[in-house]
Amino acid sequence: MKRDETMVNAYVPGQGHLSQADQDLIARRARLLGPAYRLFYETPVHLARGSGVWLHDAEGKAYLDCYNNVASLGHCHPHVVQATARQSAIYASHTRYLNEVVLDCAEKLLSHFPPELSQVMFTCTGSEANDLALRIAFAQTGGTGVIVTENAYHGVTLAVSGLSPSLGAGVALGQHVRTVAAPDPARLQGDLGQAFAAGVQAAIDDLTRHGIQPAVLIVDTVFSSDGVFADPPGFLAPAVAAIRAAGGLFIADEVQPGFGRTGAHWWGFQRHGILPDMVSLGKPMGNGYPVAGLVLRPEVLARFGAKGRYFNTFGGNAVAAATAIAVMEVIEQEGLLQNAAMIGAHLAQGLRDLAKRHSALGPLRAAGLFFGQDIVRDGQPAPVEAARVVNALREAGVLISATGPAGHVLKIRPPLILQRAEADLFLDRLDQVLAHPA
Amino acid sequence: MKRDETMVNAYVPGQGHLSQADQDLIARRARLLGPAYRLFYETPVHLARGSGVWLHDAEGKAYLDCYNNVASLGHCHPHVVQATARQSAIYASHTRYLNEVVLDCAEKLLSHFPPELSQVMFTCTGSEANDLALRIAFAQTGGTGVIVTENAYHGVTLAVSGLSPSLGAGVALGQHVRTVAAPDPARLQGDLGQAFAAGVQAAIDDLTRHGIQPAVLIVDTVFSSDGVFADPPGFLAPAVAAIRAAGGLFIADEVQPGFGRTGAHWWGFQRHGILPDMVSLGKPMGNGYPVAGLVLRPEVLARFGAKGRYFNTFGGNAVAAATAIAVMEVIEQEGLLQNAAMIGAHLAQGLRDLAKRHSALGPLRAAGLFFGQDIVRDGQPAPVEAARVVNALREAGVLISATGPAGHVLKIRPPLILQRAEADLFLDRLDQVLAHPA
Repeated sequence: MKRDETMVNAYVPGQGHLSQADQDLIARRARLLGPAYRLFYETPVHLARGSGVWLHDAEGKAYLDCYNNVASLGHCHPHVVQATARQSAIYASHTRYLNEVVLDCAEKLLSHFPPELSQVMFTCTGSEANDLALRIAFAQTGGTGVIVTENAYHGVTLAVSGLSPSLGAGVALGQHVRTVAAPDPARLQGDLGQAFAAGVQAAIDDLTRHGIQPAVLIVDTVFSSDGVFADPPGFLAPAVAAIRAAGGLFIADEVQPGFGRTGAHWWGFQRHGILPDMVSLGKPMGNGYPVAGLVLRPEVLARFGAKGRYFNTFGGNAVAAATAIAVMEVIEQEGLLQNAAMIGAHLAQGLRDLAKRHSALGPLRAAGLFFGQDIVRDGQPAPVEAARVVNALREAGVLISATGPAGHVLKIRPPLILQRAEADLFLDRLDQVLAHPA
Repeated sequence: MKRDETMVNAYVPGQGHLSQADQDLIARRARLLGPAYRLFYETPVHLARGSGVWLHDAEGKAYLDCYNNVASLGHCHPHVVQATARQSAIYASHTRYLNEVVLDCAEKLLSHFPPELSQVMFTCTGSEANDLALRIAFAQTGGTGVIVTENAYHGVTLAVSGLSPSLGAGVALGQHVRTVAAPDPARLQGDLGQAFAAGVQAAIDDLTRHGIQPAVLIVDTVFSSDGVFADPPGFLAPAVAAIRAAGGLFIADEVQPGFGRTGAHWWGFQRHGILPDMVSLGKPMGNGYPVAGLVLRPEVLARFGAKGRYFNTFGGNAVAAATAIAVMEVIEQEGLLQNAAMIGAHLAQGLRDLAKRHSALGPLRAAGLFFGQDIVRDGQPAPVEAARVVNALREAGVLISATGPAGHVLKIRPPLILQRAEADLFLDRLDQVLAHPA
């Protein structure tokens, strides 16, 4: 079976068991949207509506969504939908007029950060937030060198796609970018934090040797695209110290782990007892509405602020702000951190129990409701079997995907509202899929 | 009176006549959002709601909005608000699942383009659209040289802020970027099209002399930030021919003129009888909702599409698509191109009539409901007087701004739904403001 070289779990035209209507839709899509778009799965899913943890296809079949972290509160959460609709009908304009809503949003957001991280700038996407973080870091440090992990993903602008090796060999890394091995306990020797920091230090030295001043270490604080690495807590601290000693800044990319995903905290960096210079936010911030942002320590913004202005037309508009407020209210009022921790622990235990009966289940890494579950064969990474599991689950009405450099890591990331019975349903379907290999 | 060096019509802290409540709000804003944000006007406007052509401040005072081209259909247009709300409650997910709404949106959008421009990629902001256009152009041409006008604005990512000299000297231009004189009939000698093209050719030659292969000529097709230049129709053609002869592509930035602003056409480039390689869209596309895109000729996407994928999490999500469909429906059903042409002509005639009585009104440039009205003193650019007019109009309940390298051009850009009585109200207020200089 052919695979897409540029993306794990991408649909390859000509495969799958598609209805004529869906084949026509795919042809129409290729004609209108062109060759750079990708669909998920061997047989793409044609979705029509979403509600809570469920997505429904055009024929009414239900799928348990254990993948999408944008609709982190569940699809079409009524409190958020209402907030968007209400503010859209009142006032939707931008930040060059005074308006309370964006400030209320900023205040609420910052209340969930350590006091040192006391300012926020609003964008529309995580890509824009990371891109802005680079501009600020370059202005502040005078450097241009950037260090990322070897299968990192930080977005799609020209600048941040150049920091995103997971986009594949067709997308060139920036000439001032260096990659380091991900903090994978199975690959790095000795103390994980020291080993990861040693990689960062080597990258700093290499940048310096080439006359490039180090400006930034940026990591997704759960290393989603590298395979999900969260333990042991604290392992990030030595690497952060290394980039600071070299005069650079540390950016925590919280687009994936942020807003309670890891259960224990609002932000992934808190697991490591560190204080980032900047924190980029995205996907779950509006539960589907395009809102994102960059939280920072005022001192790192000083030079950028003195040199120029920043205006993002839609960033921090009143509807975006009202929507993000509603998202935070739901997280607080529905106790979603606690739920993510509790159901996450239950689901992790369930995966470990399944691993006793299914040798394909290798090491598991988990943080709240974010799981990286290796699929192995004879103890070795088994990307083909991982793809089979992902696609068989899709047929069985459960949506997940795969990740990691080899594509052998199941990426399991259900909404934070997941209940125990739904977790059990997921485990039951996975059990069945693993019991009946192709 | 002090001026902000980085932006025309920016509030300078300490000025104006602010209530204590608004002073507190500004202090809170500076604390939460930091130093890179700017407010408009000597005395910022504290807005609370919007409806049609009117914005209302926190104390109930009404302002005729003759500036904001995001809410191009009028603020909080009910058809658009309903479309956003309806789709938000049904399904909001992304383009890696099959769904009709994004394709319906693409089809409707492309129906308003010449048949050669037959594909669209969705982003959230005009900045992202221009940034993506650069990535595609660099992949397609193998070059990296970019040519822009000398006070151009194309967005805020790291890459496109480097093509945006209007952001001020604090934001460095890219090393592969060259600027050319804007097509200002008052400055360029002889045939405007030939003179502008000569500037582009000189930039091509300079890039080539430095070993940089020209990739892109990108212009806002009404040259908004340069001072609004739209006439004579067709003047862009020789410059487009020049960049093509050098192996580069022509990108029409339609973030400002697009979606009917110029009255005669949906897109500003159509005024010039040219066919761009790519067309970037933004601001008015969602009437406030963050949706944008890039329309292109399939042949320029071939190499980018073969090398990698593009995925923008919120770009083309079902709510964005439903909202953009609603915007296009309103433009079509309310006859807004015709209205922009008709009311635009009326307003332009009114400005010319006023100029007979007010010597401060210099040359006027107009296209539909987009106006650049020079403010002069003894025939010379008068930015201080332009600022006075902008701020006096704000006090009189009319919102406009100023633009151009010197800041002496009134930027007048009312919603496309403007009616004759409202245009007359604007003219009346302007008349009064000009009759009573400070």
